[in-house]
Amino acid sequence: MEKSTDAPDVQEFPTIRCVAANAHSKETRNSDEAKNGKAMGFVLVHAGAGYHSESKAKEYKHACKRACQKAVEKLKSGALAVDAVTAALIVLEDSTFTNAGTGSNLNLSGDIECDASIMDGKSLHFGAIGALGGIKNPVLVANRLLSEAQKGKLSAGRIPPCFLVGRGAYQWALDHGIPPCSLDKMTTKFSLSAYRRNKRKMELAEKVEMDVIQTKRRRQSSSHENDAGSLDTVGAIVVDNEGNVAAAVSSGGLAMKHPGRVGQAAHYGCGCWAENAGNLNPYSTAVSTSGCGEHLVRTMLARECSIALQSEDAHLALLETMQNKFISSSFLASEECVLGGVIVLRTCRCAVQSEASQNIQALLVEFLWSHTTESMCVGYMSAQDGKAKTHISRLPPGAVAGQSLAIEGGVCRLGSSVN
Amino acid sequence: MEKSTDAPDVQEFPTIRCVAANAHSKETRNSDEAKNGKAMGFVLVHAGAGYHSESKAKEYKHACKRACQKAVEKLKSGALAVDAVTAALIVLEDSTFTNAGTGSNLNLSGDIECDASIMDGKSLHFGAIGALGGIKNPVLVANRLLSEAQKGKLSAGRIPPCFLVGRGAYQWALDHGIPPCSLDKMTTKFSLSAYRRNKRKMELAEKVEMDVIQTKRRRQSSSHENDAGSLDTVGAIVVDNEGNVAAAVSSGGLAMKHPGRVGQAAHYGCGCWAENAGNLNPYSTAVSTSGCGEHLVRTMLARECSIALQSEDAHLALLETMQNKFISSSFLASEECVLGGVIVLRTCRCAVQSEASQNIQALLVEFLWSHTTESMCVGYMSAQDGKAKTHISRLPPGAVAGQSLAIEGGVCRLGSSVN
Repeated sequence: MEKSTDAPDVQEFPTIRCVAANAHSKETRNSDEAKNGKAMGFVLVHAGAGYHSESKAKEYKHACKRACQKAVEKLKSGALAVDAVTAALIVLEDSTFTNAGTGSNLNLSGDIECDASIMDGKSLHFGAIGALGGIKNPVLVANRLLSEAQKGKLSAGRIPPCFLVGRGAYQWALDHGIPPCSLDKMTTKFSLSAYRRNKRKMELAEKVEMDVIQTKRRRQSSSHENDAGSLDTVGAIVVDNEGNVAAAVSSGGLAMKHPGRVGQAAHYGCGCWAENAGNLNPYSTAVSTSGCGEHLVRTMLARECSIALQSEDAHLALLETMQNKFISSSFLASEECVLGGVIVLRTCRCAVQSEASQNIQALLVEFLWSHTTESMCVGYMSAQDGKAKTHISRLPPGAVAGQSLAIEGGVCRLGSSVN
Repeated sequence: MEKSTDAPDVQEFPTIRCVAANAHSKETRNSDEAKNGKAMGFVLVHAGAGYHSESKAKEYKHACKRACQKAVEKLKSGALAVDAVTAALIVLEDSTFTNAGTGSNLNLSGDIECDASIMDGKSLHFGAIGALGGIKNPVLVANRLLSEAQKGKLSAGRIPPCFLVGRGAYQWALDHGIPPCSLDKMTTKFSLSAYRRNKRKMELAEKVEMDVIQTKRRRQSSSHENDAGSLDTVGAIVVDNEGNVAAAVSSGGLAMKHPGRVGQAAHYGCGCWAENAGNLNPYSTAVSTSGCGEHLVRTMLARECSIALQSEDAHLALLETMQNKFISSSFLASEECVLGGVIVLRTCRCAVQSEASQNIQALLVEFLWSHTTESMCVGYMSAQDGKAKTHISRLPPGAVAGQSLAIEGGVCRLGSSVN
């Protein structure tokens, strides 16, 4: 894996702080698998945009690594992108360190209510659940909703749902053979102590009598404290052996959220997006987001990134989208601090010549991540790799979270079949 | 009100059947109110895209008329668009004939669970509730979510929710002074008998043993029966005295839906959209949709219409959007029958000379409706009008619902202030 220090041209975006781009670039390989048309596929995962302390970095990286490996195992066994992406998400949800599945933030009532969604770039079907409690792996329910919807109409011509919430979603999951899981099994020591700490902080804040000016000051000053570390939604994007893309996202939501609150992870176009190349789109694209749900919903960041990625320069397209459609979005004009992150990939087919002058049909995968939060933990792996690469991307020193961004990425060429 | 029979140029869209467009055009008036800079504003409402029998047409029109009058009353008293649009929705929800609020379709369990959302074109804030039971006017909760979010952060820096579902949404509504309403008060004779009829039909369909081919046949044949008449989501769009736009939508959802199912009425970008003119947008736009929730979600029809309406010809823009981004959308490639409808408006400011050679700052409002369902019931009224105009738009004879569309609209010039 070669490193390059080509910095992007950022003169026209004065507020942007960029760390070295293409730090993770990867070039053609003519492995046996590629020549034999095997072992295609690539996965990129994230364990959230938020704040990852050095002490916990190892755990986050470890979860990302295992998620990548699981997805690649699936890809190697011939699974489609949508199932590989689900496999990656299950690992991330099961990690007690991430804010998804087990270890999710507790809401105001001390319950866990999860959001998750998945999109299949081939069928363009979408499945989502919101405010779902009592299920260990919310992404499994989203996946199942998607696959049930692909089967066509229900009895008496009823249209199958693509989005279920709350008790109804829970009952649907049980009816479809997904087992229940008790709250105490999904709660961790860490999530419980964070809940108690936040609860005390809230009660204190609400007790204190403040005049309008003080209220305003409190609102501004405390926003960072509460948000930091509580935004680690997880997600994954995959391209499979056939070149199909899929994306998924899962979240326990904001700490101390109101019961019933649904964030971007369940919102179409906001939490994830996947769209195979078609007549109008030269590239297949997949996107998964993380961060403050309300900011990601109101900017429809996943879909905006996907649309932008159809332009020539993927890196520039993502940079401009994060700057113009997120940080400076007119939809968030009243927000002083816009918190979020994305992982994206796009693929296109190209023909290359092997050493033996055979034409190899290759798939070029460009992948990037970008965030306005302090840090973002990512992992990635191709089916040709022996192990996953993980990384904690951080804003450069001095950059202000919510107003600046970091952007990094790489390229990976996957061989597929010999002509 | 003059009628014109100018048919739009539809040669390039062979599958489209258009009824006479601009059938409802309205020209400049130099009323005293306009000269005095008073009585600005306009409202367009719909009582659903679906099937409106001649026998029930009167009731639907009556509900639309009262909704328009209520919105105009609000506008005349100086209310902003977002409150006028809420007032219109309350009337439509309270009508026992519409599928929203009282009289909503019952779900599989015989409960009422409503979706609603509202968007303010000025602040670009959005409020939505999904699968909400026990509240007479769901739009009131959406409106309150929006206004609470505009106040800024909650105690301890928490971000206020923009989307609440299920029990959590219900509790939030009660906590904010919105009274509960029992299921039997929201259920009508008609909704109950439809539920019993649908339940019998479902049970019958599920009892019958069928092989794969028969299943497919059943799925195709019964889709129209069930969908017809059960899609009458309601909505409204408004431009106020200051030129702000707002949009709202409310729905009881599909008949016999799974508990917890959330449709387009609660989905950002799908159920409604409102955006004041800005640096990038010459026009203020407002959109509200109706029809099959899953189709409207997956095509993000409200936002697509809003984006398209920034081009020069509003009529052509809507026609192309309905054809290319809805009926022929790649997101609905597997659907043989794409059911939905929209109401849209866009406004721009222009200066006109009055008879006394005074410069009047006028607001040009272009408004349209379009649907692929058998019919759509609409009503509209400007603050300068004495009464509302209502209309049931129908596909022309021979046109196939789900594959063809009707489009109609008009223009209205509102005077505002004397220079």
